[in-house]
Amino acid sequence: MQSNEQILSAIENFLAQADFPAEPELLYAPIGYSLAGGGKRLRPMLLMLAYGTFADDMQQALPAAAAVEVFHNFTLLHDDIMDNAAVRRGKPSVHAKWGRNVAILSGDAMLIYAYRLLSTVPAELLPQALTTFNNMALEVCEGQQYDMDFEQKSKVSVVEYMHMIELKTSVLLAGAVVIGAMLGGASDEDCRKLRRFAIELGLAFQLQDDLLDSYGDERLGKAIGGDILEGKKTYLMITAMSRADEATREVLRTAYRDPKLSDSEKIAAVKAVYDRLEVPRLTEQQISLRFERALSILDTLSVEPARTRRMRDYAMSLMGRKN
Amino acid sequence: MQSNEQILSAIENFLAQADFPAEPELLYAPIGYSLAGGGKRLRPMLLMLAYGTFADDMQQALPAAAAVEVFHNFTLLHDDIMDNAAVRRGKPSVHAKWGRNVAILSGDAMLIYAYRLLSTVPAELLPQALTTFNNMALEVCEGQQYDMDFEQKSKVSVVEYMHMIELKTSVLLAGAVVIGAMLGGASDEDCRKLRRFAIELGLAFQLQDDLLDSYGDERLGKAIGGDILEGKKTYLMITAMSRADEATREVLRTAYRDPKLSDSEKIAAVKAVYDRLEVPRLTEQQISLRFERALSILDTLSVEPARTRRMRDYAMSLMGRKN
Repeated sequence: MQSNEQILSAIENFLAQADFPAEPELLYAPIGYSLAGGGKRLRPMLLMLAYGTFADDMQQALPAAAAVEVFHNFTLLHDDIMDNAAVRRGKPSVHAKWGRNVAILSGDAMLIYAYRLLSTVPAELLPQALTTFNNMALEVCEGQQYDMDFEQKSKVSVVEYMHMIELKTSVLLAGAVVIGAMLGGASDEDCRKLRRFAIELGLAFQLQDDLLDSYGDERLGKAIGGDILEGKKTYLMITAMSRADEATREVLRTAYRDPKLSDSEKIAAVKAVYDRLEVPRLTEQQISLRFERALSILDTLSVEPARTRRMRDYAMSLMGRKN
Repeated sequence: MQSNEQILSAIENFLAQADFPAEPELLYAPIGYSLAGGGKRLRPMLLMLAYGTFADDMQQALPAAAAVEVFHNFTLLHDDIMDNAAVRRGKPSVHAKWGRNVAILSGDAMLIYAYRLLSTVPAELLPQALTTFNNMALEVCEGQQYDMDFEQKSKVSVVEYMHMIELKTSVLLAGAVVIGAMLGGASDEDCRKLRRFAIELGLAFQLQDDLLDSYGDERLGKAIGGDILEGKKTYLMITAMSRADEATREVLRTAYRDPKLSDSEKIAAVKAVYDRLEVPRLTEQQISLRFERALSILDTLSVEPARTRRMRDYAMSLMGRKN
């Protein structure tokens, strides 16, 4: 596995190999369907690259890499039920295609399957890998619960929002790199550093996702302004609310459900406020801060600098930055 | 821990000790609520007694015993959503009390918590315990899916039904005794035998549950005839269908939803058919066959006969048999 393309294709092959029983079909078919759905494979890539930072036979890390990807897809499957999302990566979501009960149960089976993949790591590393995985998995659930809680809350602070996305997004990236590094023989200190790297990278990544949803990017397949039309409490919205006067706050609170406005007018109204309050610039600043912090942590690992190159390059490409 | 009461109270104490974070409340409160719901604690009791068949310091087996009980309660929590069941052990089910999304997510967290408990078994036994647990958990999901599939099928055979309850009920009892025995130092052969013991015991237990639902028992807190009124495909119904002529089958198929009949008339109509076709006697025969088989396996374990006494007594009391 010399290139990232080769690593990615090894991950895809490994995931596609999963040999589920034919019966009961409604339990196993949705798992194969979910795993064939594509995506960036960000989490297994990070696990593989973390492993590769400390060891060379990357093949060894594939089952654990698959475990974090299966776990991630399990969370998407159940989140789609909770969010009533009918589409996932351009295809019907599992609950839209097979119904709610099938989605609940096949999601459960998928979580168990993630543990089955994880259980194949070398026995002497299993206790540590399992503990890391369990803590990560529980924190991801906490993040999802906070995310749902926020929908009911009238006011969410920036600090609360950052804590939520750290749990919902960063913690899984952190689990992936820590397990990868651990399997590659990294010291506890290097594992802790890589954890911090992934936390910061995940925050940068999520804030960029928030920004792109409203301000777009040709790499993004989805329409601009979805978060605004849903009235979602994103970093942009929360930052704007924290800087706005009461009259402006009322605009932010109500524009998305104003029956007198068309969708594009709603988006324009909210973005006009964002622009006036310098929200895009502040968001970009926060993204850069987090991302630079992540990269600088890579320099402190106790390996030859050349060994961190791939992880650095991957993080750069993930954030759409030129090398 | 000299008596079963002491073992049970050790299990209750261990479960009650679980120290969940206060936040997010909607994630963790339902887990505590579910675990405080009581029940027989059949699965952890079996794990403890299996451990006690081979070793003496039963305290050691408590985390694994808690893991299987937490897993069992996770399945109940998610099954209640799928079955739209509003009541569990006389209290509102989690989804009835907190809503569907909270039930899905706190169930997920509960499954992860079961793995966290399991991860504390001695490191040298963890790979084997985890593999046993994973296989068990996936099979329980298969059983639940078959159970849901059966609701849509017009005809279910006795063989199919036995396979379903083996997966849905027996496999979890088997996982519990195998993990308990393994932790207690049992040989692979003794583990295999205890697995078979638990499979047979589980089948006897489930068939007895089916029988009691229609024919009652003062120990049972619920009203008689619930399965009949729901049109459930139980062992009794499937056996009756396999023995009835076409006219009688039509009665069995339609009585439960006949608007001209009161509930007690529906129950009486179906039970009249059961009685005429000797279904209660055949079911009791099957229960005894399975239960005797289970007990005879205990005699073949490579331990002094006195060490199997507690497990035997517990199985007897579970099935309501006198020693």
